[in-house]
Amino acid sequence: MIIQLNQAISESNKATIVEAIGKLGYKSTEVKTQKGKYLVSIGKKEFDIRSIGHLPGIDDIHRVSDEYKLVSRKWKVNRSQLDLGDGVVIGGNNLSIMAGPCSIETEKQVEQTLTHLTQNDVRIMRGGVFKPRSSPYAFRGLGVSGMKMWYKQARAAGVKIISEVMQVSQIAEMYDYVDIFQVGARNTQNFNLLDELGKVDKPVMIKRGISGTIEELLSSAEYVFSGGNEKLILCERGIRTYEKASRNTMDINAIPILKEKSHLPVIADPSHGIGIREYVEPVALAAIMAGADGIIYETHQNPEEAFSDGQQTLDFQESETLIKKLRMTFDLRNSF
Amino acid sequence: MIIQLNQAISESNKATIVEAIGKLGYKSTEVKTQKGKYLVSIGKKEFDIRSIGHLPGIDDIHRVSDEYKLVSRKWKVNRSQLDLGDGVVIGGNNLSIMAGPCSIETEKQVEQTLTHLTQNDVRIMRGGVFKPRSSPYAFRGLGVSGMKMWYKQARAAGVKIISEVMQVSQIAEMYDYVDIFQVGARNTQNFNLLDELGKVDKPVMIKRGISGTIEELLSSAEYVFSGGNEKLILCERGIRTYEKASRNTMDINAIPILKEKSHLPVIADPSHGIGIREYVEPVALAAIMAGADGIIYETHQNPEEAFSDGQQTLDFQESETLIKKLRMTFDLRNSF
Amino acid sequence: MIIQLNQAISESNKATIVEAIGKLGYKSTEVKTQKGKYLVSIGKKEFDIRSIGHLPGIDDIHRVSDEYKLVSRKWKVNRSQLDLGDGVVIGGNNLSIMAGPCSIETEKQVEQTLTHLTQNDVRIMRGGVFKPRSSPYAFRGLGVSGMKMWYKQARAAGVKIISEVMQVSQIAEMYDYVDIFQVGARNTQNFNLLDELGKVDKPVMIKRGISGTIEELLSSAEYVFSGGNEKLILCERGIRTYEKASRNTMDINAIPILKEKSHLPVIADPSHGIGIREYVEPVALAAIMAGADGIIYETHQNPEEAFSDGQQTLDFQESETLIKKLRMTFDLRNSF
Amino acid sequence: MIIQLNQAISESNKATIVEAIGKLGYKSTEVKTQKGKYLVSIGKKEFDIRSIGHLPGIDDIHRVSDEYKLVSRKWKVNRSQLDLGDGVVIGGNNLSIMAGPCSIETEKQVEQTLTHLTQNDVRIMRGGVFKPRSSPYAFRGLGVSGMKMWYKQARAAGVKIISEVMQVSQIAEMYDYVDIFQVGARNTQNFNLLDELGKVDKPVMIKRGISGTIEELLSSAEYVFSGGNEKLILCERGIRTYEKASRNTMDINAIPILKEKSHLPVIADPSHGIGIREYVEPVALAAIMAGADGIIYETHQNPEEAFSDGQQTLDFQESETLIKKLRMTFDLRNSF
Repeated sequence: MIIQLNQAISESNKATIVEAIGKLGYKSTEVKTQKGKYLVSIGKKEFDIRSIGHLPGIDDIHRVSDEYKLVSRKWKVNRSQLDLGDGVVIGGNNLSIMAGPCSIETEKQVEQTLTHLTQNDVRIMRGGVFKPRSSPYAFRGLGVSGMKMWYKQARAAGVKIISEVMQVSQIAEMYDYVDIFQVGARNTQNFNLLDELGKVDKPVMIKRGISGTIEELLSSAEYVFSGGNEKLILCERGIRTYEKASRNTMDINAIPILKEKSHLPVIADPSHGIGIREYVEPVALAAIMAGADGIIYETHQNPEEAFSDGQQTLDFQESETLIKKLRMTFDLRNSF
Repeated sequence: MIIQLNQAISESNKATIVEAIGKLGYKSTEVKTQKGKYLVSIGKKEFDIRSIGHLPGIDDIHRVSDEYKLVSRKWKVNRSQLDLGDGVVIGGNNLSIMAGPCSIETEKQVEQTLTHLTQNDVRIMRGGVFKPRSSPYAFRGLGVSGMKMWYKQARAAGVKIISEVMQVSQIAEMYDYVDIFQVGARNTQNFNLLDELGKVDKPVMIKRGISGTIEELLSSAEYVFSGGNEKLILCERGIRTYEKASRNTMDINAIPILKEKSHLPVIADPSHGIGIREYVEPVALAAIMAGADGIIYETHQNPEEAFSDGQQTLDFQESETLIKKLRMTFDLRNSF
Repeated sequence: MIIQLNQAISESNKATIVEAIGKLGYKSTEVKTQKGKYLVSIGKKEFDIRSIGHLPGIDDIHRVSDEYKLVSRKWKVNRSQLDLGDGVVIGGNNLSIMAGPCSIETEKQVEQTLTHLTQNDVRIMRGGVFKPRSSPYAFRGLGVSGMKMWYKQARAAGVKIISEVMQVSQIAEMYDYVDIFQVGARNTQNFNLLDELGKVDKPVMIKRGISGTIEELLSSAEYVFSGGNEKLILCERGIRTYEKASRNTMDINAIPILKEKSHLPVIADPSHGIGIREYVEPVALAAIMAGADGIIYETHQNPEEAFSDGQQTLDFQESETLIKKLRMTFDLRNSF
Repeated sequence: MIIQLNQAISESNKATIVEAIGKLGYKSTEVKTQKGKYLVSIGKKEFDIRSIGHLPGIDDIHRVSDEYKLVSRKWKVNRSQLDLGDGVVIGGNNLSIMAGPCSIETEKQVEQTLTHLTQNDVRIMRGGVFKPRSSPYAFRGLGVSGMKMWYKQARAAGVKIISEVMQVSQIAEMYDYVDIFQVGARNTQNFNLLDELGKVDKPVMIKRGISGTIEELLSSAEYVFSGGNEKLILCERGIRTYEKASRNTMDINAIPILKEKSHLPVIADPSHGIGIREYVEPVALAAIMAGADGIIYETHQNPEEAFSDGQQTLDFQESETLIKKLRMTFDLRNSF
């Protein structure tokens, strides 16, 4: 059960509500975000919600039977949108394109990428400065210094930044330089990291776990929301299956399901979803047709020389073609 | 290695070729289909194919390193098309829509379905008369009598028929009444059935196994082709994964991969691919955008009363909407 | 619901029972096996089974809520045993060892294998004469002539035969020469084959499907039992997962679960379960400790020269060591 | 390539080696653990290792082609053992039993558990004070205060403690109170946590990821080892598959494979591996027979009242029976 509290509710009125709910056997968690105040109340007993609906300070009450509550669409019919400023909005009638290299490598690389993006009117650049790598001996990213170098150029170009945060201590280090924190597929259930991101007033995009269920992804988002941050984006990036003809199996089903179950925007990552450069385009277009609010993909001036993930990275010409087709596909879908 | 033989090759010239190849350590299988004569030669030694290319009766020679040979696109650059007659062609620039109930149930049901299809200019009707069921106590289909009843009406309406064949003895029983034999997901590796379908001059659509790999699907098609029947269609219908929010996981990646690896047309089955009625449309549209040559899906006058699979079956209004969107999506993709 | 009928029940008494059950909304399937007569009655309405229990001809009535009925342990507390004659019994307090090559190849190979088996007091030999192969160009087995050659030697040696049947027409061809029909992992849901095996009075061992669920395996066994043949064995042989360090993932969990859910004997196949020769022994011993009634594995005089599956085949010395350890492990388990 | 350095090597000799290796195109990482000094050198060029073997300060050089190096068995033939003091040794000829509740709950619960363990001569107690939970609203453990309460009693009883660490900041908080840090299945690829555990001089047990590969588990162990801590244990705890009859699929194959590929001890977790109380015993015994060095499982005075995981938790009587059978099974295996 989600109780939407009035922004101006007094402490005593709130206490009265918690007590009333408690008497019904419900345990309440208070949530305060950038946009609202909520009580998430969990219990088993059936009761008539009108019996508490009259209490002062309550704006609305909703039954939500899902395990996840605040990210469910059961209480919030209007889909959430995220306004990053400067006209960049995620969700609603906007197609979000996030493109860039797997790893931030050099000043020149960032410059070339930004030029490519601005020429194609792409407003969000992806890139990693902290890289999760299976092997401890692999390149692990440029770290904060890379972040600052990138930020300086991106701001000048009017381009927003999305980048992966791997641990709690990096949140503060990255805070001034990112527009969206990305939680990677290996950290989808790093609950401490999610807790801390709940305390931050910046958007967070959570990737589905390597073999995470749709429900687990939503529960991870619930961590951040219930921690106080409702600026959330979900990302489908392919799952691990027995099939080895592709790096992962893009779960196209997850897109309409997530859009139905949650009010949060959904982004698809075809680069990881299939992992093979020549097939990124059809999978990206399919994801839009299935209902995605946008695409995040890897592009590099010279994929063969990329520090990581070159085999799934588009060159700028392929990227430009993709962008055009994404927009036409999105327009068709919107016309339906 | 595939050696395309001249249609008019003499037996003695053929024997000379087989012998020459044999001396190089290659074992040859002779294949004669509706369209051509081939030698599929398998061996390990590298040699200059020009050294045998001059032998009389050889039209062309192709190296094919894949496990599957005849269905590979490595030797056949032009994609295969299937002409079912009466202007119904699968593959090429045609969008194939195959729709109908899970099970053929009654004369009236067939009549209603045909009316719905013809009103929407859909030329191929699906339906099962032999139903593979996990439980021996479940409805197993109307059998041959249902087939005949269906055939009579479909012919009158100018609509083609695709239906599942489950065992060798049914091939002859069904032969006069089907336009396309469908091999179901539980029979993808029923090699005896595939062998027998190789001897038949009717198109065969092979569904991917419940947890079959892309390579296994292509190898199953190779059985039919090498048996003498190159009228083949591949069908992606979702795979079994750990995710239980959908019945299967539609492997959208498989579509561009199959189109790249094979010259055969590829059909997608969103009904089984996701298994939930309300999400069939987005998955169907995504499959077209990913490159599918067509869609097979379940529709019924009254899904709630369907004998089987009602939860993933569209009603006729939903079906009509889907058909329109499929065509617009296909047109957009073709415009790229 | 399973109604055990008296062997001597009259037709009119049976009709009375079917009618009485029918009035309660239950649909009955009559099953007559080598051992008993049953009515499998399926319906939804709750009623007091004592209300029909008095009808003449009824020996016993059992509620069975599982999807599968006759193979469930809910109605048959005593586990089933299979007596193959000559002192060879599967199930109960017997450890069944079935060993032999993947494919029957030559007279000499059969002779060597039989010598190895009899020296180690192994009473059941495995071997394939019909081989399911992904590629149509691979060796497909010696067929019926191989079967006969094998049979002649095995009978002389007092060794029983288990061999895979791939299609309906092979049942009659093999009938005189096999002691156990094996249904392979690609045919677990070949329902027509299962139907026909239900009409046969020889034991049938059903392997779990390549990605079959435990419930599907039990439902496949239900096909054979309800067809009239209750001489059944279940076989766990590994499932398909994302892990590629082994050929399949031996589902050790399936062994105690199958033993709990069904009264049928359970055999484990470590050769396919892990697919790597050097690890067959630990997996085989683990399966016994988990509760298996026996093991089926591949052994060959010279695994490197085996026509198929050499990489997972033990040589005779390894096989002999394994047999000894299997017996000691089985004895320990029985002592608990 | 792993170069074992002499403990007393001078800085200048080390520099000489790094330079010599560098000239061959190899990049070296210096590793200093509790037990040794190593250079892990990665490069592609083949060369004769004897050409550098004579350099002063080198004890030994080993080629290791695996992605993981220091945890590989290719360079360390003798398996690693961990001595926890007071006669508690993991690995070698020792059977390690780690038992206790999912969550540490109350003083009384800890007391009862310790009594049960000491009566059965079990020397290591498991228990969670930081609990990873899918839902933010679930019980998350008693935290450090629970840890201290537990520690006090366990020390008095002479029992060692293993407990899960979820994030970097908890390492210091827990350090004085644990004997083994456990990395949970959701943190197997939390690389920052692994990095920090490399700096600690306490044993670390790493659980396989929820759908982690065997190779990923070994690479995660490599993080800790290369960070400076070679006191490592691997744990197989079941993987996520399509099969839903059990909570996870215990990958019994992983046990012999890990023992073959790595010199580290391997523990099996049957509680999570199957997730159903009544089947924990057969799976535990199977894991021992497959080669595990020990078992970690959940037991509770009253499983029905456990705060978490009650459905897979043994009561003390079941636990006692299991312990006895584990020891007899281990003895049999050791006798082979």
